[in-house]
Amino acid sequence: MKTIGIIGLGLIGGSMAIDLKRRGFASRVLGVEKEPVNAAVAKKIGLVDDVVSYEDCIAQADIIVVAIPVGEAVKTVCDILDRFQQDALAEKIVIDVCSTKEQICQATHYHPCRKQFVSTHPMAGTEYSGPWAAVPNLFDGRACIFANSEESAPKAVKTIEELYDALCMRPIYMNASQHDVHTAYVSHISHVTSFALALTVLDKEQDEKHIFDLASGGFSSTVRLAKSSADMWVPILTQNRENVLHVMDTYIEKMQQFREAIDNFDEDKVRELIEEANRIRKIIR
Amino acid sequence: MKTIGIIGLGLIGGSMAIDLKRRGFASRVLGVEKEPVNAAVAKKIGLVDDVVSYEDCIAQADIIVVAIPVGEAVKTVCDILDRFQQDALAEKIVIDVCSTKEQICQATHYHPCRKQFVSTHPMAGTEYSGPWAAVPNLFDGRACIFANSEESAPKAVKTIEELYDALCMRPIYMNASQHDVHTAYVSHISHVTSFALALTVLDKEQDEKHIFDLASGGFSSTVRLAKSSADMWVPILTQNRENVLHVMDTYIEKMQQFREAIDNFDEDKVRELIEEANRIRKIIR
Repeated sequence: MKTIGIIGLGLIGGSMAIDLKRRGFASRVLGVEKEPVNAAVAKKIGLVDDVVSYEDCIAQADIIVVAIPVGEAVKTVCDILDRFQQDALAEKIVIDVCSTKEQICQATHYHPCRKQFVSTHPMAGTEYSGPWAAVPNLFDGRACIFANSEESAPKAVKTIEELYDALCMRPIYMNASQHDVHTAYVSHISHVTSFALALTVLDKEQDEKHIFDLASGGFSSTVRLAKSSADMWVPILTQNRENVLHVMDTYIEKMQQFREAIDNFDEDKVRELIEEANRIRKIIR
Repeated sequence: MKTIGIIGLGLIGGSMAIDLKRRGFASRVLGVEKEPVNAAVAKKIGLVDDVVSYEDCIAQADIIVVAIPVGEAVKTVCDILDRFQQDALAEKIVIDVCSTKEQICQATHYHPCRKQFVSTHPMAGTEYSGPWAAVPNLFDGRACIFANSEESAPKAVKTIEELYDALCMRPIYMNASQHDVHTAYVSHISHVTSFALALTVLDKEQDEKHIFDLASGGFSSTVRLAKSSADMWVPILTQNRENVLHVMDTYIEKMQQFREAIDNFDEDKVRELIEEANRIRKIIR
């Protein structure tokens, strides 16, 4: 049993805290949270055993989980590795849970303590954020990506595999740039389409009562990601800029094809596009 | 208690059959289903009391629900009104449940039996179709639109209000063209964005295993409408062509704004767009 330190008690960090503790992987969970209100809530609802300073967290935890937005996460992981080196903390491990992997893997690549860092992306989440959004079982059955895991010490990778096993996640191994390409397709683009959908509806439908009244389950599910926080998504979309732009171009092209078919009263083409899209049925159950 | 005849035992017709019967609004539910396999399933799972011919359904039912794709529904409702007139069936009521309202209301406007037709749109559904997709409680708490209800006999409207009350739906009254504008914004566009998303992912991600492995809950929820059937959606998108094109243009424009902001490394603009989209939080809980 280990002491786990979680930096950033939001949806991901908070949900990890809940399940790592109650499933017995962690004997003790420490949290670091710079927002005073969030820190107070995390204490009040007992999300962690203690809210501590950044320095105390690094000193006391065996595994440090950096669960903050991707821009800050890069700096924080580097800083933690510096401290590992300075204080000769050879047994500790730091992991990140970022949605983009290339930049953080590049930034740490030549660090003398690189072996103590395991870069992961648990592919789970909701559109909510903050410690009040943390829920049990968030990760169950989902995939967790290990990026460039050959750069980490095998023993550290094994420990982190055990951590994610406690969260009931399936490990998948790939390199950081592959990860960023694939997540642009299956995660980042769906957030952009959802933001654009919300913007469209808010723009066209001035009467908010109508949106509320008429929103069907279908609309709610396609627009729900538009509730996602800017703090999280601005750095993801800008860090993964090239891949995201590439997939957006394809997406806009598909929308134009649809538009043209509808504009031309071309029912056969509309049907063809819908039936092609229906292939997703076999992949996403 | 009434005999209800449901033409089209799909998701909507089948789900209405379940709740109208078990909640005591219908003493008997008759189904008409032209697809032999679907008819056999509806019988086998006991979705309706009997599967009958179209003619028997009109002869025996007090209320006839036309729950088939919008193109065919227009013809069927007109045909049923013709039969009401021919056989002097002044007590019977026919309703449709179409997702577009202008065309069906126009087509029936001058019919001598127009007063026996109530045009409705229960705003509920899932991405699945067929009698096996029918579920209890599908309509609970959702809105049901009554279009041009002043053209129906007040007594007929009252009866259908009671029917939707048994389904726990909130009635909303509007004219058919208003309906088609609003549903383009809050329903039809989300299907198009979802179809386009599926097409994009299927186009870019040739390795289907990766889509399956990496799809997070967010992706699944934005893409789930892409499973919706072409039989249903081709006529909706083409019947509501002008409104759909208008809202697609706004949507493509919003995507372009996002694209430009990301392309220009303009983090402030990306943040502004996301925060504007976040306003949807207050409307869709």
